[in-house]
Amino acid sequence: MPLDNPFYSAAAQGPYELHSLGRFELEEGEVIPDLRLAYTTHGVLDADRGNAILIPTWFSGSHQTWEQMYIGPGRALDPEKYFIVIVNQIGNGLSTSPHNADDPSIAMSRFPRVRIGDDVRAQERLLRELFGIERLALVVGGSMGAQQVWEWAVRFPEKVLRAAPIAGTAQNTPHDFLFTATLNDAITSDPGWAGGDYASNLDVAAGLGRHADIWAVVGLTTDFWKTEFWRTLPPLVEGETWDGAGFQDFQERFLRALFRMMDPNALLSMGWKWQRGDVARNTGGDLAAALGRVTARTFVMPIDRDQFFPPADCRAEQELTPGAELRVIPSIMGHMGLFGFEQELLDAVDANLKELLAAEV
Amino acid sequence: MPLDNPFYSAAAQGPYELHSLGRFELEEGEVIPDLRLAYTTHGVLDADRGNAILIPTWFSGSHQTWEQMYIGPGRALDPEKYFIVIVNQIGNGLSTSPHNADDPSIAMSRFPRVRIGDDVRAQERLLRELFGIERLALVVGGSMGAQQVWEWAVRFPEKVLRAAPIAGTAQNTPHDFLFTATLNDAITSDPGWAGGDYASNLDVAAGLGRHADIWAVVGLTTDFWKTEFWRTLPPLVEGETWDGAGFQDFQERFLRALFRMMDPNALLSMGWKWQRGDVARNTGGDLAAALGRVTARTFVMPIDRDQFFPPADCRAEQELTPGAELRVIPSIMGHMGLFGFEQELLDAVDANLKELLAAEV
Repeated sequence: MPLDNPFYSAAAQGPYELHSLGRFELEEGEVIPDLRLAYTTHGVLDADRGNAILIPTWFSGSHQTWEQMYIGPGRALDPEKYFIVIVNQIGNGLSTSPHNADDPSIAMSRFPRVRIGDDVRAQERLLRELFGIERLALVVGGSMGAQQVWEWAVRFPEKVLRAAPIAGTAQNTPHDFLFTATLNDAITSDPGWAGGDYASNLDVAAGLGRHADIWAVVGLTTDFWKTEFWRTLPPLVEGETWDGAGFQDFQERFLRALFRMMDPNALLSMGWKWQRGDVARNTGGDLAAALGRVTARTFVMPIDRDQFFPPADCRAEQELTPGAELRVIPSIMGHMGLFGFEQELLDAVDANLKELLAAEV
Repeated sequence: MPLDNPFYSAAAQGPYELHSLGRFELEEGEVIPDLRLAYTTHGVLDADRGNAILIPTWFSGSHQTWEQMYIGPGRALDPEKYFIVIVNQIGNGLSTSPHNADDPSIAMSRFPRVRIGDDVRAQERLLRELFGIERLALVVGGSMGAQQVWEWAVRFPEKVLRAAPIAGTAQNTPHDFLFTATLNDAITSDPGWAGGDYASNLDVAAGLGRHADIWAVVGLTTDFWKTEFWRTLPPLVEGETWDGAGFQDFQERFLRALFRMMDPNALLSMGWKWQRGDVARNTGGDLAAALGRVTARTFVMPIDRDQFFPPADCRAEQELTPGAELRVIPSIMGHMGLFGFEQELLDAVDANLKELLAAEV
């Protein structure tokens, strides 16, 4: 029986639709008996279906941040011009996930291993089945969303006219693998996790808190903490303020509180997937060959102070991608700049996406 | 009864002496009934006692790395010219520490909280009592050793002619506090830690392994892992090689194996101290006033790719210190460049220390 977790609801994340793909075979050989993808759309699809934009989601995220921070009239992702589809990744808590699986064969600790390629294949089917979309004006995503953007551009080059991987790589690095391992271990080392068969995410509060603490170190930056930039962030709980708070209060009431609401197995499922993101799986391990397949007009958009998808790693992939350009995005928040709390970052993302969308392909 | 841990022995760390300071009152108000400092010396003290150099140690380290990597004839730290004293910090496993305390009132979980200022006061007494040293030609240290260098320069400005804090700050940052908290929590979340009263460090192997894994992410760099720079490091166990090893094998057989040999309470004692390093405690919280006291000729030497004592944080302190110069040291290993496995780093440290030692004061 699925666990009840109010964090994964329309009330908490904003409204969404579910599309069932039925039986779905995974790259690792296991099967999801009825794969359901949670998605939202914004705008109207042109008659020629030429104005579609796809946004896959990042680790621990949903469609919500994209809707609240990045999509709007006059923005690059303008629903008055484009038909924008945001698809929640498999295992994120809204699409089919360990805690919400009806089928006991894949519930909780029995949830199969899912890869980036599974998400991309599922999204491709969703776009065709629901909307008849065969080509995308743009695929854009951040972090694990960027991993999916890269996979789209390599796996379906004829379908992707433009690609914007933000703060993520095509081939996960060893450093990133080790970082994600520390995130996963923070959860699995909590006795309350119980091998994945806990009765409530609240049983794993300690592990989720340690998970959040590692994010605070690697996902943000020393300047974010030193300058108390966090005081500019909206408190998680409406009505609260940061008056009188110190940095440890912020950590407790923001990142720890946020991650404790999440499902541990969802984070582990996404973590496993993130660790193994690699477009070179399409080309027998040859990264240059994989990126050489890309025909999309591509802007590679790392965040300047990102500590685990740093610009240097993104630049190396940009240089292997035909015609790709490097556009570095500024954020004092490092990787977590993706939250979109800084106007400077939003402006930079918008300017680059507008230029990319205006580019001939 | 002290725990037996062969890692903290002359056989493992190289020979050392012990000096007892007797009853020692700590800044936090507690007492170490008989504080013993483990130290080594190299070279001969001049008749005028003008050639003394002090080296305090870093987190988890001892005198050994300094002796093996940084001290030698022809080097900046030349025992043919200088009288070099390396003092192991309190709680490091060789000086009085939780696991080796004879007195049950301070053994294991009852070990009192020690601050950087306690180490510096203890070192000052050791130098006077044993050698009659009243002035130091140089105080140099890395990481937590740099915290002690800064404390020396602020607390005893008349005694420090030259100061070289390498890869460490005078005032710990919130980011660094949070990082160290993740290191501590990796240990204390292991049920085997048992509130600090384990029977053997081996009972805490899982927690020590997670501790090592966080070091692998924040203490090193993405390029260290991506370029497999680790293949150039000597295996921990003599006779082993990295042939056929992958990066996860390296992590298991190097950092995890190394930290698992250590004492959990020693790491926690040092971690607590590190989190609270702050020279502004000498000036009512005013960092500028504290650094304004420094009269030593000071080279501030961050490591270029250090992720938790980054150059920007060190530069901010250098700019507050009268006459101080910023000398950035290169290392693909980031903070762990301090291990001294790169000739380029050793050359850069030597060149800067030679220039500093040659400078008039």
